[in-house]
Amino acid sequence: MISKVVEKMLGSRKNSYLIPADMVANVSESNHLNHALLVLTKVKYAKIPVLDKKQHIKGLLSLSMITDTMLGLNGIDPSHLTRLTVADVMDTEVPTIHQPYDIEEILHLLVNQPFLVVVDDDSLFKGIITRREVMKEVNYLAHELEKEYEVKPNPGYVKI
Amino acid sequence: MISKVVEKMLGSRKNSYLIPADMVANVSESNHLNHALLVLTKVKYAKIPVLDKKQHIKGLLSLSMITDTMLGLNGIDPSHLTRLTVADVMDTEVPTIHQPYDIEEILHLLVNQPFLVVVDDDSLFKGIITRREVMKEVNYLAHELEKEYEVKPNPGYVKI
Repeated sequence: MISKVVEKMLGSRKNSYLIPADMVANVSESNHLNHALLVLTKVKYAKIPVLDKKQHIKGLLSLSMITDTMLGLNGIDPSHLTRLTVADVMDTEVPTIHQPYDIEEILHLLVNQPFLVVVDDDSLFKGIITRREVMKEVNYLAHELEKEYEVKPNPGYVKI
Repeated sequence: MISKVVEKMLGSRKNSYLIPADMVANVSESNHLNHALLVLTKVKYAKIPVLDKKQHIKGLLSLSMITDTMLGLNGIDPSHLTRLTVADVMDTEVPTIHQPYDIEEILHLLVNQPFLVVVDDDSLFKGIITRREVMKEVNYLAHELEKEYEVKPNPGYVKI
């Protein structure tokens, strides 16, 4: 359990965490890698969601998953890019959370993931929650905590 | 100014934020892009520091800066990779902080940067501070705040 005050302050604008699906660049699992390389090069995000035709989340794709197919014994070889598809190289382990999500879960998962994929009950892609959005709320908490609350050392607290 | 309590709790293990230079993959500004592509593909970090021969920080390099040189009118063309160097494509705007750094500055800069480069007074590269490390401390604060402190609404607080 996390502190109720922290939960309240970080969660007060909770919906603002979500970057909605239509604002997030994505690729289709059936796209060839030359197309995906173009998309990832241009959007500049390190990793983007992979969707099927019905907007279900299927995986995550980064540039390194694509460039890894180009490392040959005789240097950089792009010849596989027109043959392989996103499905061939994507990471299918996707850190997902469901709405309504809770702050404790978000904080915990974002230690090891730069962003979380939000899905509905039918696994449809709803958007992402990024460390960036949470960092904005942490700044808010850092500035406002001792304005909104009186904070005093707990006399009964024993540091373990 | 941020809350003294937040500063204390997030800063209590402040040195643990720094990932020291010898643990951070880097490339040299004189490396050719085919070498840099290999490094970035294998380390899987989205962006890594670029150093000169004396360990001064010169820029940041991501895979998309390299793959951008491969986008030709006739498809993906890696022929420039053996001719161009890291210095030709790197981003020279590096978000740096100096030791001793303060928590407020780190929290603020990490909204827009996934990591910060730490340098000493001679611009020598000392390491990086990542959102991941700060997220660990935010989790600590979220769990411990109301154990270590008594937190009560401030009766004089007026929300603007």
